[in-house]
Amino acid sequence: MPRYRLTLEYDGAAYVGWQRQKNGISVQETVETALKSFCGDDVTLFGAGRTDAGVHATGQVAHVDIAKAWPTDTVRDALNAYLREEGGVAVLAAEIVPDSFDARFSARQRHYLYRILNRRPPPTVLKGHVWWVWKGLDVEAMDRAAKRLLGTHDFNAFRSVNCQAKSSIRTLERLDVIRGPGDEIHIHASARSFLHNQIRSFAGSLKLVGEGRWSADDLAAALASGDRKRCGPVAPPDGLYLARIDYDAA
Amino acid sequence: MPRYRLTLEYDGAAYVGWQRQKNGISVQETVETALKSFCGDDVTLFGAGRTDAGVHATGQVAHVDIAKAWPTDTVRDALNAYLREEGGVAVLAAEIVPDSFDARFSARQRHYLYRILNRRPPPTVLKGHVWWVWKGLDVEAMDRAAKRLLGTHDFNAFRSVNCQAKSSIRTLERLDVIRGPGDEIHIHASARSFLHNQIRSFAGSLKLVGEGRWSADDLAAALASGDRKRCGPVAPPDGLYLARIDYDAA
Repeated sequence: MPRYRLTLEYDGAAYVGWQRQKNGISVQETVETALKSFCGDDVTLFGAGRTDAGVHATGQVAHVDIAKAWPTDTVRDALNAYLREEGGVAVLAAEIVPDSFDARFSARQRHYLYRILNRRPPPTVLKGHVWWVWKGLDVEAMDRAAKRLLGTHDFNAFRSVNCQAKSSIRTLERLDVIRGPGDEIHIHASARSFLHNQIRSFAGSLKLVGEGRWSADDLAAALASGDRKRCGPVAPPDGLYLARIDYDAA
Repeated sequence: MPRYRLTLEYDGAAYVGWQRQKNGISVQETVETALKSFCGDDVTLFGAGRTDAGVHATGQVAHVDIAKAWPTDTVRDALNAYLREEGGVAVLAAEIVPDSFDARFSARQRHYLYRILNRRPPPTVLKGHVWWVWKGLDVEAMDRAAKRLLGTHDFNAFRSVNCQAKSSIRTLERLDVIRGPGDEIHIHASARSFLHNQIRSFAGSLKLVGEGRWSADDLAAALASGDRKRCGPVAPPDGLYLARIDYDAA
């Protein structure tokens, strides 16, 4: 029974999140339904990152076992044909991987992008795809402060109360704040794994730094406190994209 | 009675087009309603380009006369506050201009962008904002062919049957086909003015060149024929953006 690795792109606005839930349609369920239409079997899709409602992906990875060995291009194109009516999810690539491959546990590095639209007028074309912050932000100050979070720390202050991870210790490999196209500010975050709401908590606190309401020391103090109440307001899901996941070469 | 020049951004998907129509909400009507809420008067907004239903703008320009002289930042912010509920239009800038300024007739150059997403999987995050072409296109061939359209020509082959312009002679200053970010192909078109559907006609015909179904000579022959039936299929509005309009310094 061959295992397939699927690279997925989706617009999070249409879904209750990655994971199957009772209160609406999830990305997982949407792709599983397309898989059933394609191969006739009930299959379970295992995703690398359980994105929340409203969070987008341009490089989510999932694995699934299918009874029959189909050519990978057939799997990609057939799933996209079934997904097209839905219109919110697409399969960017399908590959056959060894049975030892696990989308979640084999991941070596996860890369996220958080997009802020920093201008007085509200978004139109980018509505739902950026966080609109109308007050001018100091990008350089945000980037300097972000560097205080790099490395291995207890990130308890920057996770959701609903986070189910046993340990809140993580190793942050990258946290860059740079100017994007137009009036966008991009936050790039990379780590082997993240806590629930960790990047949206970073984005919300870095905004306070960009507004001059927090210093880099305030950000470092919030981290050191380990106290969730010391975190800035959690940024909305609209701006968050699961961009890429790295795996060791098979 | 001061005249204001407004720079507008909008997501065309929500509107029947720029111009007031009986069959739905137009961008013009939406902004005129916000203007009435702001200043209490019925005013008429004159746009530089009458974009069709589904066509976006990142730099539409319009002028309007308002009874009272408000600070320009107040005009911009107040209109955006009224427009926010609507969510599809934003005022990027407001300026006071001489009474001789006419958004449509003073325009020296109009710049449009046409975005193609050229990949096998359909769009998700960019749905409604690009033209999805799944067959691989030869960007260099498209760009070389595009150059055959530059200069002053009778563009009758590349306009809508509904085009109301008396003359179909126009001077095309720029038509570049370049690779954009991700799997995008961008067509940049600039001219003092365009015919109705001219750029979407260009995009549809250039796609045929990119697929290898048309040569550059075929494109030049379509132009020379002056026959609308010789034009390729008109590309959808989703990919088209009115990007910028140049005026002589006041």
